[in-house]
Amino acid sequence: IETADAPRIDAILEPLHAADIADLLEQLDFRDRRSLLGLWTGMDGEVLSELDDNLREEVINELPADQLAEAVRELESDDVVDLVEDLESAQQDAVLRALDAPGRIAVEKALAYPEYSAGRLMQVEIVRMPEDWNVGQAIDFMRGEENLPDQFYHVVLVDVRLKPRGYVTLGRVLSHPREMPLKDLAEESFRTFHVEDKQGDVAYAFNQYHLISAPVVDDEERLVGVITIDDAMEVLDEEAEEDILRLAGVGIESEISDSTWGTVKQRLPWLAVNLLTAIIASVVISLFDETIAAVVALAILMPIVASMGGNAGTQSLTVAVRAIATRDLTGSNVWRVLRREMIVGLFNGVVFAAVMAAVGIVWFGSPALGGVIAAAMVINLVVAGLAGMGIPVLLDKLGVDPALASGTFVTTVTDVVGFFAFLGLAAMVLL
Amino acid sequence: IETADAPRIDAILEPLHAADIADLLEQLDFRDRRSLLGLWTGMDGEVLSELDDNLREEVINELPADQLAEAVRELESDDVVDLVEDLESAQQDAVLRALDAPGRIAVEKALAYPEYSAGRLMQVEIVRMPEDWNVGQAIDFMRGEENLPDQFYHVVLVDVRLKPRGYVTLGRVLSHPREMPLKDLAEESFRTFHVEDKQGDVAYAFNQYHLISAPVVDDEERLVGVITIDDAMEVLDEEAEEDILRLAGVGIESEISDSTWGTVKQRLPWLAVNLLTAIIASVVISLFDETIAAVVALAILMPIVASMGGNAGTQSLTVAVRAIATRDLTGSNVWRVLRREMIVGLFNGVVFAAVMAAVGIVWFGSPALGGVIAAAMVINLVVAGLAGMGIPVLLDKLGVDPALASGTFVTTVTDVVGFFAFLGLAAMVLL
Repeated sequence: IETADAPRIDAILEPLHAADIADLLEQLDFRDRRSLLGLWTGMDGEVLSELDDNLREEVINELPADQLAEAVRELESDDVVDLVEDLESAQQDAVLRALDAPGRIAVEKALAYPEYSAGRLMQVEIVRMPEDWNVGQAIDFMRGEENLPDQFYHVVLVDVRLKPRGYVTLGRVLSHPREMPLKDLAEESFRTFHVEDKQGDVAYAFNQYHLISAPVVDDEERLVGVITIDDAMEVLDEEAEEDILRLAGVGIESEISDSTWGTVKQRLPWLAVNLLTAIIASVVISLFDETIAAVVALAILMPIVASMGGNAGTQSLTVAVRAIATRDLTGSNVWRVLRREMIVGLFNGVVFAAVMAAVGIVWFGSPALGGVIAAAMVINLVVAGLAGMGIPVLLDKLGVDPALASGTFVTTVTDVVGFFAFLGLAAMVLL
Repeated sequence: IETADAPRIDAILEPLHAADIADLLEQLDFRDRRSLLGLWTGMDGEVLSELDDNLREEVINELPADQLAEAVRELESDDVVDLVEDLESAQQDAVLRALDAPGRIAVEKALAYPEYSAGRLMQVEIVRMPEDWNVGQAIDFMRGEENLPDQFYHVVLVDVRLKPRGYVTLGRVLSHPREMPLKDLAEESFRTFHVEDKQGDVAYAFNQYHLISAPVVDDEERLVGVITIDDAMEVLDEEAEEDILRLAGVGIESEISDSTWGTVKQRLPWLAVNLLTAIIASVVISLFDETIAAVVALAILMPIVASMGGNAGTQSLTVAVRAIATRDLTGSNVWRVLRREMIVGLFNGVVFAAVMAAVGIVWFGSPALGGVIAAAMVINLVVAGLAGMGIPVLLDKLGVDPALASGTFVTTVTDVVGFFAFLGLAAMVLL
């Protein structure tokens, strides 16, 4: 298809949803994508919104200015902000120039809010009404208004200073007589966010309280925008994704569509950190080189102790990182959870100590060696449980993202403790 | 507070959102929770819905039958299904008995659908209308109807056979004159799901196409329910969570509120698998026991090669697992991605080979040892990239969840290859 005619490409892509077209572009390689973009005339703002960041830059560079302008003009303000915020400034200017004056001002205002703030997430297209209106007035207003947002599910009631006073779902407006005051239909409680609230906190609240949309206010408590559930859920999704990638030591922007060089940049730093911690573990081993020279079986068995500790630590750590992210791990239960981790480590340690003692005796015919590995296993699994739970909590207290840094610390601890316990005990017992 | 008076507890809990009360209950320990439940009279269905599965069983056991009945009756059908599906059958019966006949039938019908199907996720409370109505008729109908769902954002247009024909957002109903036919306001395209569609696929579609709600049909294509975005997003959230936990080898139901014994059950099996793979790696080492006895430095350095390979493999694997989950890794780009992984592995391998060669020379004064570890590093990082990307793809093709099983395979491969390459080369070069 790549070498074929433009009208056919248009015909194939036309019925597809923007998100599917974006996925398709992401799966092509650089050259095919370029020739496709050269032939296809239907690129619009929605497809641009759906693209991964790294491809978006590439595609915007390829796109003629007028087509870009047209594409951007269809979007709502929050989508333009999302589109523009990660672009280089030259591209950002090009997109902003394509907007009409009110649109540009709205986007520039949003960009003035801190990154990852509610102000960047909200759309400024709001349906708001005076708080003393009734259902009839609301319906008449909406029938008369040309510029309603594409999608909206609530109306916000405001006082004369534009302060949000209430929140009415459209379902309630529709199901009540014209003379019913809107005030009486308002939700019992509603949550507003401040423009500088963190997006993570907003997303958490949407998820926790099952919100569909929520008003955003500025410093004077005036209504300046609304955040809708789809945007909040995207944030939540991204945060979970970031935790997964950070836990694995991969840059949080990693995409399957990254270039080779981009991938190297994402992964090399983490491997370098890992090399350092691995060298620390090696130094611990080198303290016992005479012991190993005397009993080579130690070299054969020592990776088992370290590997079990590392895995048990990763288990605890993952549960801890997610519990911190979902705010289920707090000061009030951290001691109980730590105690549980210790007991779990002790129990698992004893189970695997028994197994390894048996292996040590059967494989190497040495009950002493079996005893040493058993003891080291128990010690390391208990330490793994405590470190796996305690280190993320500590990092979180210090304001460091636990998903990012815990892994290194925890495996360093389990490696060092594992090797030290195993080889140290061996030096005492076997020599 | 725990030892204090019931009215005060009611007063403290009353203004809190159900989700917050549930979180609070989860953070208490068993005894405190029990005494709190004994004192507090405000337990309702929403709090029950918000509780973790393991606590829900406990709480339902503690709750008097009449309070349970009242709590459950307030909920919409999809929430009752969610509440009931993981309970033991005795508890399930108790809850079902509390419902009125139509409610019970709806829930029993939903439970007849397969687990993790759209049928279990949907609510049966629908706002539907004949496709030939106009705006005025719609408004009059909604004003006259007593049993509208609590929250709804669209109306579904159906033909005489109850087949969904169109989909109108409430915003559009409200902003058009009474004589406007609903058909003309319907969304250009709308997606319906089948009751037996997988929840994962439904959630993916909601996220991909930014749906807010969508109709669900049965085998005869009749409208039987709707799925709303908050339920879909919960599924998406759970799936990301499950991937995180599976990648770390922790049972997917792990919660910070689990009991000690529950935690052991979640983690022990995975550690047992890890022990097996660690023993395989040890067997590889034992093949070279004479080499190690001759050159103890090998024992000191060998964990570095294995650890770097394991980390690089985990990086590739995590990116692969997420790309499979979000459907960004498909047959059309898998070869390109594999090639990229190989090049990335080669590049990182060369960088760290240079570092380790230097370490080998400086630390142990042996250029030959430096050369051996450098070569082993390159080999292991290339293998790590290929295995980390290839194994999840292969498992996915075979119908095995790649998040669950890939980790073991990949680290086994990198351990075995790492030890074998390093010690094997050493045996050839150094002895």
